[in-house]
Parts: sequence; structure tokens; C-alpha cells
Amino acid sequence: MPTLRIALAQVNPTVGDIPGNAASIRRWSREAADAGAHLVAFPEMMLTGYPIEDLVFRNSFVAASQHALRTLAADLAADGLGDLAVVVGYVDADGPPATSAEAVPGTGRRDASALLHGGEVVATYFKHHLPNYGVFDEDRYFEPGIELTVVRLDGVDVALTVCEDIWQAGGPFTAARRAGAGLVVNINASPYELNKDDVRLPLVQRRAAEAGATVAYVNAVGGQDELVFDGDSMIVSPDGVLLTRAGQFTEGLLVHDLDLPVADTVPNAEGSTDAAAPAFEESRDDHMPVKRAIIDTKLAALTDKRTGGIADRIADEAEIWSALVLGLRDYVNKNRFQSVIFGLSGGIDSAVVAAIAVDALGPERVVGVSLPSGYSSEHSKDDAADLAKRTGLDYRVQPIQPMVDSFLANMSLSGLAVENLQARVRGVILMALSNQEGHLVLTTGNKSELAVGYSTLYGDSVGGFNPLKDVPKSMVWQLARWRNTQGNPPIPENSITKAPSAELRPGQRDSDSLPDYSVLDPIIKGYVDHDLGRAELIAAGNDPALVDRVFRMIDIAEYKRRQAAPGTKISGKAFGRDRRLPITNSFREGL
Amino acid sequence: MPTLRIALAQVNPTVGDIPGNAASIRRWSREAADAGAHLVAFPEMMLTGYPIEDLVFRNSFVAASQHALRTLAADLAADGLGDLAVVVGYVDADGPPATSAEAVPGTGRRDASALLHGGEVVATYFKHHLPNYGVFDEDRYFEPGIELTVVRLDGVDVALTVCEDIWQAGGPFTAARRAGAGLVVNINASPYELNKDDVRLPLVQRRAAEAGATVAYVNAVGGQDELVFDGDSMIVSPDGVLLTRAGQFTEGLLVHDLDLPVADTVPNAEGSTDAAAPAFEESRDDHMPVKRAIIDTKLAALTDKRTGGIADRIADEAEIWSALVLGLRDYVNKNRFQSVIFGLSGGIDSAVVAAIAVDALGPERVVGVSLPSGYSSEHSKDDAADLAKRTGLDYRVQPIQPMVDSFLANMSLSGLAVENLQARVRGVILMALSNQEGHLVLTTGNKSELAVGYSTLYGDSVGGFNPLKDVPKSMVWQLARWRNTQGNPPIPENSITKAPSAELRPGQRDSDSLPDYSVLDPIIKGYVDHDLGRAELIAAGNDPALVDRVFRMIDIAEYKRRQAAPGTKISGKAFGRDRRLPITNSFREGL
Repeated sequence: MPTLRIALAQVNPTVGDIPGNAASIRRWSREAADAGAHLVAFPEMMLTGYPIEDLVFRNSFVAASQHALRTLAADLAADGLGDLAVVVGYVDADGPPATSAEAVPGTGRRDASALLHGGEVVATYFKHHLPNYGVFDEDRYFEPGIELTVVRLDGVDVALTVCEDIWQAGGPFTAARRAGAGLVVNINASPYELNKDDVRLPLVQRRAAEAGATVAYVNAVGGQDELVFDGDSMIVSPDGVLLTRAGQFTEGLLVHDLDLPVADTVPNAEGSTDAAAPAFEESRDDHMPVKRAIIDTKLAALTDKRTGGIADRIADEAEIWSALVLGLRDYVNKNRFQSVIFGLSGGIDSAVVAAIAVDALGPERVVGVSLPSGYSSEHSKDDAADLAKRTGLDYRVQPIQPMVDSFLANMSLSGLAVENLQARVRGVILMALSNQEGHLVLTTGNKSELAVGYSTLYGDSVGGFNPLKDVPKSMVWQLARWRNTQGNPPIPENSITKAPSAELRPGQRDSDSLPDYSVLDPIIKGYVDHDLGRAELIAAGNDPALVDRVFRMIDIAEYKRRQAAPGTKISGKAFGRDRRLPITNSFREGL
Repeated sequence: MPTLRIALAQVNPTVGDIPGNAASIRRWSREAADAGAHLVAFPEMMLTGYPIEDLVFRNSFVAASQHALRTLAADLAADGLGDLAVVVGYVDADGPPATSAEAVPGTGRRDASALLHGGEVVATYFKHHLPNYGVFDEDRYFEPGIELTVVRLDGVDVALTVCEDIWQAGGPFTAARRAGAGLVVNINASPYELNKDDVRLPLVQRRAAEAGATVAYVNAVGGQDELVFDGDSMIVSPDGVLLTRAGQFTEGLLVHDLDLPVADTVPNAEGSTDAAAPAFEESRDDHMPVKRAIIDTKLAALTDKRTGGIADRIADEAEIWSALVLGLRDYVNKNRFQSVIFGLSGGIDSAVVAAIAVDALGPERVVGVSLPSGYSSEHSKDDAADLAKRTGLDYRVQPIQPMVDSFLANMSLSGLAVENLQARVRGVILMALSNQEGHLVLTTGNKSELAVGYSTLYGDSVGGFNPLKDVPKSMVWQLARWRNTQGNPPIPENSITKAPSAELRPGQRDSDSLPDYSVLDPIIKGYVDHDLGRAELIAAGNDPALVDRVFRMIDIAEYKRRQAAPGTKISGKAFGRDRRLPITNSFREGL
């Protein structure tokens, strides 16, 4: 059996930055070659970033991707890396490759994988299974591929697949078995969800059995707008043994040696049948034809044995915290902001946002502004100052009462309008500082209060990025406690233990308006995230009157958003696609 | 040949309001019966409204739709309308019909059409072609149907189809030919685009030829969030003659008598082949099996002859104006707002919004607020007052300088931060009035200034609905001039002819910062709406330096939105799905 040294490049592309992504591929390919690798695999759409969304409809962008792929192959060879097999994701389209700005790449766009070697694009594969659920819209953007691609590398047959191909039975993995592939390379841009790593391993194991081949799974890492990719790259043997696995949320090369079978001398273009194949679901996809390419070069002999090891799994809080930190860092850096600014109230939400921001960017890039009104308590100001001291962020105090008073003196306002006015004056101040000094404004509202509308439109909702928008209040506290156990505790104990208050009128408490978060959050999760109805939530043990009350709050919050904020939707799941809640004047569950 | 009196109910459902939509069906069915109709057809998803988006994932909602359909059939019979064949769109799902809150309708949701008669659901059909482009996401929401449904009504074979089925060759219309259908009923929720009516007629003619049958096309009318449905219902004979056609943007019944062929006595469940069938594109869909139902009742004899007539087409400006008025009216009414409020500057944008709002809601439901600063010109205040007098809207004046000064006295601001501050103080005032008095805030920025970022986030962008968000500035002027020719001119001539200015600093003019709108708007259209690249726009005759300048402005505007407004995307086309523009720090055309 030949031994192949595989490097999985768990790295961080940027959507749209083709030159930057190409440079990253060359840099990591150099590292892989230095580590003695024969083949290095990069994530799905590495060259363009993922998700490119409507950029795919721009012919000039697709042409740029096609052109960059050919240039990359040549550049790698010029770098002295022509002997390294480089598997890389990019966007392709039907029709002749575009060689000038006038050429039209064609209408059938493809989520593609290419194998580069010897200065050439040796083979390409088009993703077969296109996901169109959750955060994915690929039926809108791509045509599915209908052929499997197998590249013979010094006698070993390597099949190319992309992401969703591994999430569905049938298609490329069963085709890989019939084609006799020894290794299936599966390149991914698989977004983080809580505990998704628990799902991935069994899935890769199942497909490895289906293909009867070793599966090398490489995932991107990094934040891209509302998505975070967590890595978790791995290699699994045909009999389901986890051979090596990378950690989550960190860039790096996972280098591992694999003993792989030599392929039949004369490959059958139709694939061979394997009587010993286990019975998997039959699918009309199962008979994908096979495209083959052969690389004759002899692999360099290995003088040592490399194993990638198996990274430990981390606790839920560590997973979520890492995702929030990485998501914020990459949003700020990929959009080239120098610094962030937000209101620091002394409450738990802004305290956790501050801790995330400092972990993501360092204290010198973080500005926290205390914006006290006449209703702000002493402990709020003290707790904000305490957090600033613990973290070292740039702390400022800007009282809002003079501005609030100028509105009150010139208009006739009362009740909620006065409460909201205070939050909006804070928003105007933060935006003025953003315009004056260039900071990105962060929003600090948690998912629970956003869902039930316990927030002011154009007030606390002001900001370009909200680290907590998908974090329920109960989890905000849990994260704060967990973070304080990791080295120097950034969050004042008082911010964690005191009763939450918006401090927009004297003595106000969240509990005046909201049920306890421990009973509120499960109902929000059921109604918003899981589309459960009234009967289902009551059957799950929630109090009927409370279910009705929370449904009404969520429904009215959706109204309020319609009143003054087009496009402001709350998200159904962590790092997920924004969802439209029901238009609830009409359809209310049991009301 | 039997004569069938068909009524096409071009009516206005509300998403989620199943009881209200069912009541509307009963009301219009009564009118159809009173007009002597044998069959009345309602739009796609009439019972649930369209588009229901993520509501489809809520099992309780799908169950409510299924239940309401059966109740509707019984209610129609109880209303004495059992003899009327009623074709109605609804949402269905695989599995047994849900009869209680515990039942799970199953996972395969369907965009369905049913024919109700004699108190029963006689037949159902599931939409075959699912659109997944532009404003449509149906691959995400529905499973495609694979059978054609034909109902024999007193000897005439009537095939049921839904919307997109008519936009694609193959499938139900060719199946209808083989099944020997005499009439194809196509129910629609087809959103308005400029000149879409010019596309629909040839399309219906082509499908009528394909089916060898008369086609009755009924479309919804009304606004639903970001979509407007324009009606334009029609009937076309097998040889392509337009028999009758409704107007756009108005509710009503289109009643027309059709002489239709008697079907073969013994229908073939597989359909019969027709040697005379024209050669259309072959498609794997062409062999849809046929489900048949038979209604034996004898049709009531007709004592007169009814024709629906052919409504005149209207000018482009009238089309757009009607769409804007209907879109605003339905957004306000379906969301149950009593009134709207917005800043009335004396400029052309807010003047046109005021005229649209008054046309949509009447002057008593419209509040215009003049918000002058120290930089506001006398003519601005005069023009705003003049418009208020012409239209009769509720006019108020609220100077902003005291509030602006309170910020300037307490913060160190300069340049753009001061300009934006003024716009944001205006936003705070409008929101305070909204909170205090309950109005919906309207935004008044046109598409050109939104695209190039000539606007203040959380300032002029404040509002729940923006009638002009998809209207380029050139068209704003064109609409103003057109509207002033229709009866009493609402818009002061000076608002139309004066040079546009934001009036945020002394002597400011749009032309200080922007190219002339006559050259700007075509570049925006090319880059944003049509995904054209630099080379394509230059080849189309645009000045290269100007293309570069406008690309840069649009790219930077997208940045600004990222800085402070998550989810604020500009729209690619009129009443279309919001689009994500490229992340333009990385991919810039030719820069």
C-alpha cells in the first residue's frame, strides 16, 4: 500500500477577496510542502469565499474565479510546488472558460472543486447535492453536478466531493465505491451550530462505509457576516475509525499519513460493482458516471511517519464563546474596521459584549461608553467602570440628560415615548462617535429581549453587528459565569447577580414586564426556532397562560418591527439565516 | 359545445389571515353565483395568502389551512353555493389531513389548488413547477406535484394548474393536452414588475397552444409586504385569441362565457396522445399521470350571454403609481396601522411620498412634519406648506435646532458627523411621534440615493415602509410630473423644478456629491439590478471614469450599511427580494 501524506488546510477565506484567498492558498501550500505532504485540500469555495450569494450572478465575478484558478495552478508551479496535489474549491460555470472581460461564462454556475498539479488544472468536480434549507440557498445559485471525478495519484484513486455531498445518502459516495476510489476528499464550508461536531463524525463514518474508502473531510474556519465556520476537519478510515481530527475555531494544517490501496490498473469508466457493498438507500443518483484523470508522477518517499492527532472536544460554553469571539473578530477585520464602540451600561448584556470584544480585538480596539441618564443607578455606573478597569478598554462617560431634556422641552411626550427617547438619544450619540472617529457600533441586545420586543427600535437596536442576537438571556449569564472561570475574570460579579433592568424609568425591572427568563427562553426557542404551535408547547409542559402571553409578546414585537424597521428580523437559530416571523395580526396560535 | 360561465376572482388575500380569506372567498363566490357563473377561480394560496414564507414550517399553520379548506367547502354548500365549482389555492401537506392540534401534517408541503363542489373537496392538484429565483424561494418551502388533476364538470374536462406551471414548458400543460382537457385553470400569485403584463399574454397564448385548450388565468391583486400583485387576469382560446382581460391593480370578478368541447366519454387515465400536437421542448416532466374526478351535476342553463371585455393597458407611470399606492395602502391596512407620518422637507422625494400616501389613505390618515434646521431654506418650508395645502394632509412644523444644539454643546462633532446628526434628530422626533400617537413612520429616500449611500443611517432611513426604495430619482421626477397631470396637481411645481439638496450644510446641492441623475441612474441599474460588470457598462456607452466613480460609491455605501445597519440591503428590482451587494472591500470591478 502506498502511503500518502495528506494535509487538510483548515483556513479562513474572505468572501469576494479572490487575490487574498489565492495568496493564502499559496502560503498554506508552501507549509504543506514543507511538511512533506503529497496532497493538500482547502475548503469549499476557498478561492471566492463562502457564501458568495448574489455575487454568483455577476458574470465578471465568475470569470474572475475561473481565471484565478488557472493562474493559481501556474503560480503554485512557479513557487516550486508543482509536485504537490492541491485540491481547492472555487466557482465555475458552463461554457468555455472566460479569458477576457467580454467572455460570458454561461448560465450554469457550479460549486466546484479542482485538483491542481504540475501547473495545470488536472481535474474538476461539480458539487452534486445542493442544500436549500436553513442558511443555504444553493438551488437558487448553482446547478448540480452529475459526474463523479476520480484522479489517480501515483496509483491511488482519489475522488473529489463537496460539502453537502456528505450529508445525503446516494450520489458521489456510492459512485466512489463503484469507481474503486481509495480516498474521498470532501471539502466544506460547514457553518457552526451548537454541538454540530457531535453530528459530523458519525456522518463521515457512515459515508466512509458507503464509499468503502478513507474520507478526508476539511472545513473552513472563520466568521463571514452572520455565519461562523468552526473547522473540525478530520480523516476517517473505511471501517469508521477516526484517524485524526483538528480542533474547532483555529486555523491550521492537519497533516496525517495514510496507507491507501493501489487502484486497479485499468479503471472502468462506468465504475465496477462491488458485491460486498452494504445496502444503503437506493437513489436515482447512484449511477453517476465517472470522469477520470491520471497523474503519473511518483510520490516523494516519506522518511518519517506523521499523525495529526485527535483534538479534544470542548465544553458547550467554550464552543459558543469561541464562535462569538471569532464571528466578531472576522466581521470587524474582514470589513476593515479599526475599532468597535457600544454603550456600556453596567448590565450583563453589555458586559458580556465587552468581554467578547476584548477577547476578539484586544482592549485597545474597544470603546465602551457609559451613557447615564437621571434614572441610571450608581451601581450601574460603578459596574461599567469596574468592567473597564478589569478589561482595559477605552472607557468614556457621556451623560444623556441634557439632550433628552431638549426633546422633552420642545415636544409633548409621555410614557413609553419618553422611555424610548432615552434609548434613541444613546443611539444618536454612538452613531455620532462612529461618524466622528470611525468605530463600528455594536448592538448589545440578547435574543430573548429581541424576540419579545423588550428593546427600542433605533435605540438599543443601533449597530452594525450584534454578538448576542442569537444568544438567549439564560445563556448570556451562563457564558458570563463560564468566562469568569477562564483566567482573569473580566465581568464584575455584580453585573451577573443583580436583577436586570433597562433603567428607563425609576425602579424599573425586567421582571415588571417579562416572565422569568428560565421559563421564557424555552417558549421562545419552541415558537421561534422550532416552529412549535401552542398545543405542542403545552404538551411539552409549559404553562398554557404563559405560552399565550409569550406568543402575544413575540407577535406584537414582530408588529413593532414592521412599524419602524424594514428588514429587521430576528434569527431562528445561532448564526442562521434571518427568518420572517408570521404576520401575526392574522394567524395567532390559539388566541 | 356546452357553454361554461367562468368567473375569475381577481381578489386580495392577506398572508396568515385564514378566516378573513375564507370569508372573502364566500363573499366573492356569492357574487359569482349571482352573476350566473358555473365555476369561479381564486388566486394561488388564496386561503393562506402568498407568500407565507416560513409559516409553512409551522405544522399548526398547515393543519389550519387543510382544516379551513374542508370547512370552506361545507360553508359554501350551507350558503347555497354547492352547485358552484370553486377553484381555490391553499397549502397542503402529505399524510392524512390533520384533524386536531396533535396531528402532524407531514413534511412534504404543497402549494395546492382544490376544486370544491357540493360541500366536498372534489379534487386537489399540487403545483408542479416551483420557482426559485427572484422573489421566489419555493424549492425551500414546497415539494413539487407529479400528477395532473382533471375534473369533468358536466362533460367538460377542466385541468388544474398553479402559477409557475404556466411559465415553464413541459409538465402540466402538455399533460393537459394528452388528457384531452378543454379548459386549463391556472391560479396565480404573480408579483408586479414594470411591463410584466406585456410578457404574460404571449406566455398564456403559448401554453394554450401547448395544451390545445382554453386557458383561464387568474391572478391576485394587492400589496403584501414588499410585493405587489397586479391582477391582469385573462382568458385565452386554444388558438391564442385573447377573449377577456381584467385591469391591473383593482379587485373584481371577470365573468365570461366559454364554449368548451365535450370530453371523450371514457377518459384514459394515462392520457391520450394527440398526433396533431405541435412540437414543444421535450421534458422529463411530459409524462405526468392524470388523476380524474367527475362532477355529474347538470350545469344550470344560461339565459344571456356574458363577456368580460378587454381592459385597456395603462401607461408606465400610471402602472408604477398604482403599484406604489396599492403597496402602501395594503401594508398600512393589513398591518392595521391607522395613519402614517414622515418628514416633509419641501423636496421632491417627500412630496411624491406625500402624494402617494394621500392617494392611498386619504389626507386624514397622513401626517407630514416639516423639520427645519438652521440650514433649511425659506422655499423648503414654503413648498412643504404648499403641498400640505394642496393635499389637505395633517401638517405640522417641528424645528430641530434646539435638539441639534444640545448634542453639539455636549459633544465634539464636526463635518459629516454634524450633517448626519441633523438627520438623526429628525428620525428621533418622528419615532417619538410614532410612539406617542401610533403612526407608521414612512421613509422617503429614493433608490438612487440609497444605492450610492447619499443618506443617513438611523436618520432619513428611519421608517417601517419606504414607497420609493425601488424608484430611481429620475423616475421620481417623472412620476411627479405625471401625477400632476391627473386631476388637481398635489405637488408644488417648485419641488419638481428646483435643484435637489439635502440642506445639511449651507448652500449644499446633490450635484456637489453626485453625478447628474440622468447618467447615474443607468449605471446603478446596470450594476445593482442587472449584475453588469465594468466592461459591460463601458461597452454600453457609459463613461469609464464615471462607471468607476459610481461603482466606488455603491461599494462604499454597502460598507456604510455594514457599519451600522445589519439587514439593511437595497433591493435589486421593483418590489423584489432584498439583495446582498458584494462585499466590496475585496471584489471591486476594475479598481
